Amino acid sequence: MSDLEAIREAARQFREERDWEQFQDPKSVMLALVGEVGELAELLQWLPADKARELIAQEPLHTRVAEEMADVLVYLVGLAEQCGVELGPAALNKIAKSSTKHPIEASRGRAPDKSSDRA
Amino acid sequence: MSDLEAIREAARQFREERDWEQFQDPKSVMLALVGEVGELAELLQWLPADKARELIAQEPLHTRVAEEMADVLVYLVGLAEQCGVELGPAALNKIAKSSTKHPIEASRGRAPDKSSDRA
Amino acid sequence: MSDLEAIREAARQFREERDWEQFQDPKSVMLALVGEVGELAELLQWLPADKARELIAQEPLHTRVAEEMADVLVYLVGLAEQCGVELGPAALNKIAKSSTKHPIEASRGRAPDKSSDRA
Amino acid sequence: MSDLEAIREAARQFREERDWEQFQDPKSVMLALVGEVGELAELLQWLPADKARELIAQEPLHTRVAEEMADVLVYLVGLAEQCGVELGPAALNKIAKSSTKHPIEASRGRAPDKSSDRA
Repeated sequence: MSDLEAIREAARQFREERDWEQFQDPKSVMLALVGEVGELAELLQWLPADKARELIAQEPLHTRVAEEMADVLVYLVGLAEQCGVELGPAALNKIAKSSTKHPIEASRGRAPDKSSDRA
Repeated sequence: MSDLEAIREAARQFREERDWEQFQDPKSVMLALVGEVGELAELLQWLPADKARELIAQEPLHTRVAEEMADVLVYLVGLAEQCGVELGPAALNKIAKSSTKHPIEASRGRAPDKSSDRA
Repeated sequence: MSDLEAIREAARQFREERDWEQFQDPKSVMLALVGEVGELAELLQWLPADKARELIAQEPLHTRVAEEMADVLVYLVGLAEQCGVELGPAALNKIAKSSTKHPIEASRGRAPDKSSDRA
Repeated sequence: MSDLEAIREAARQFREERDWEQFQDPKSVMLALVGEVGELAELLQWLPADKARELIAQEPLHTRVAEEMADVLVYLVGLAEQCGVELGPAALNKIAKSSTKHPIEASRGRAPDKSSDRA
């Protein structure tokens, strides 16, 4: 079983044991994902940009960041389940598509433009 | 190699070929993640809540939703890399922690409160 | 003084008294805005869509929703200040631009498409 | 009429002329707000943090940033209307509450903690 499948199954079991599947619908899970993204952003917001990586490596911030990322992933996996999306293949396909869209020579060293894919 | 590792390696190669690693720092990748979450939200926003799952199952919406989810995942994996977080184990640990926090009997069938973990 | 100006001045005074202006830069304030949007989303996420308005009208939820919206607005006003944007005129201009983009007859009663402006 | 009231009235008229009020409910407008926040984040994501303010002052970026902020505000005003919230007074009240929560002497010059209000 892949790691995304393991997460999906563990989360589904968690919800089923609590009879929480009834609250899952795409727009609700999307909002829950937004909530977790917000919590992750709060952990990073006031870090000086040039010291962020170094500060995130230190505890207790590192563990808190890991937990918020985990929450984002768990809801993303749940949303994919709601939407019938296979997340792993979808991500690899998207990177392949971005590779075609951004030819290596034309893209090298230039900050990707906001309107393009930036995998 | 796990799903998440495969995505991380494909994305890293994509960036390295284009010399885009230089643009990666935690706050920038966090904002890129927010951008993709926004694109995903836009696809769902006006769907009637009670028909969202059914409408998302139809093309071309299904493919677009899958692609935006893919983008969210790719940036989340990139952010985890920036932050030294192993995303797969972190997610499974978080679900286990939520299981302790929300005892089955006390939680059954009650919509989880906003201030709690809702894995 | 307009209400957006009153908010801007009150927030600026709050920060100046605490010597917090030093932490304000566009990407940091943007992330702070994302954090508050996440907190607002958390309050709405599990509400049944067809009862959301009615439930939000009740206390204590109503006051919590008002406070999170307030936080979003305060950071948006702060971000506008960082970026030299006059938020009030910008919003009225954008609505006027959307009116041109979406002619009344062609748009009537059709859910706006995700790729268009939806003021 | 205050700024925020003028925006609310212009947006309401825009929607009424197009018979779009029917698509407005709290969770949908919340997702639309998230979509616009994402578009704003995309404009800032790859800017070097220490040059962001200067780069945003230049065209065409300045106008695009102003337009995306405008969209965020228009949806926030629309969401407040859905939720029966008076946004202007709510923001001033929240700043006053934050002032009590963060006494000046204890807060001076210390980056606000993520778990606190940061008006």
